[in-house]
Amino acid sequence: MSRSNLDNVGDLELRSGASSHMGLRLWLRLLTTTNLVQTALRKRLRAEFDTTLPRFDLMAQLERHPDGLKMSELSRRLMVTGGNVTGITDQLEKEGLVTRTEDPNDRRAYTVRLTPSGRTLFDRMAVAHEQWIVELLGGLDLDEKARVHQKLGKLKSHLLDTLKRDA
Amino acid sequence: MSRSNLDNVGDLELRSGASSHMGLRLWLRLLTTTNLVQTALRKRLRAEFDTTLPRFDLMAQLERHPDGLKMSELSRRLMVTGGNVTGITDQLEKEGLVTRTEDPNDRRAYTVRLTPSGRTLFDRMAVAHEQWIVELLGGLDLDEKARVHQKLGKLKSHLLDTLKRDA
Repeated sequence: MSRSNLDNVGDLELRSGASSHMGLRLWLRLLTTTNLVQTALRKRLRAEFDTTLPRFDLMAQLERHPDGLKMSELSRRLMVTGGNVTGITDQLEKEGLVTRTEDPNDRRAYTVRLTPSGRTLFDRMAVAHEQWIVELLGGLDLDEKARVHQKLGKLKSHLLDTLKRDA
Repeated sequence: MSRSNLDNVGDLELRSGASSHMGLRLWLRLLTTTNLVQTALRKRLRAEFDTTLPRFDLMAQLERHPDGLKMSELSRRLMVTGGNVTGITDQLEKEGLVTRTEDPNDRRAYTVRLTPSGRTLFDRMAVAHEQWIVELLGGLDLDEKARVHQKLGKLKSHLLDTLKRDA
């Protein structure tokens, strides 16, 4: 967490009740924790496989869909802009890790699939990625992890209800 | 969480010990919870202020630095690429919310500052943003928030130690 975030929390303490204040502090900590795990994953993917998290996430989507995905489906699932998905797919195709096949019914639509060597590489990365997550989350013991998981489940239900009301 | 994530968790259960398995489940839940809060914030910023989270975050950085920030500092603090920062800054400048001043010592370097109307708008957005976070995190009572905050603090220390070792 940056110094300026901490300063903000200080200011908020003056004008918020204890529960509001803890809501803001918990949000900053959720964000910081998530960012730290992702930073560690990014560094390790770079160091061990010379790859990036968006490339890994794209290959993970393709691994779950052996029949391939349209570019538009990939963009939606990865929640990134079409331009980024196109750029990453171009690069993976050059490296022989994915193929693009034209849709006979819609010549503008391409279906993207992992190649056998793309799948072999992804499987190796997925095993490492899973071990890293277990290690990174290892700062809490089983009981602590289970309790936080349960409380975040309660928070998740509240968030889903709120999003439904907002829609 | 998508169906495919849930399927993955099922597979992992077969080959991981209870603590490893809970590590993976906790990570998916942390990521889901953080994403749901950010989705709600994005929707509300769009609906109430016709703005985006990256624009809000950029203005938040400038609000904390009344003497302005160089484009390079802004990019670093926002952890996005220079191109995005330039695009957002161009747009905010057109709307009269920020100004760019050339550095007399380095004509390629610009300092970006909020204008008075940029500051007024940001202050309104910041008040709403804070209320939204308190509401979104309101799915847990004070005691639950404090406990999760404390456990995530322990996890954060572990993550910082791990990142130091990785460096």
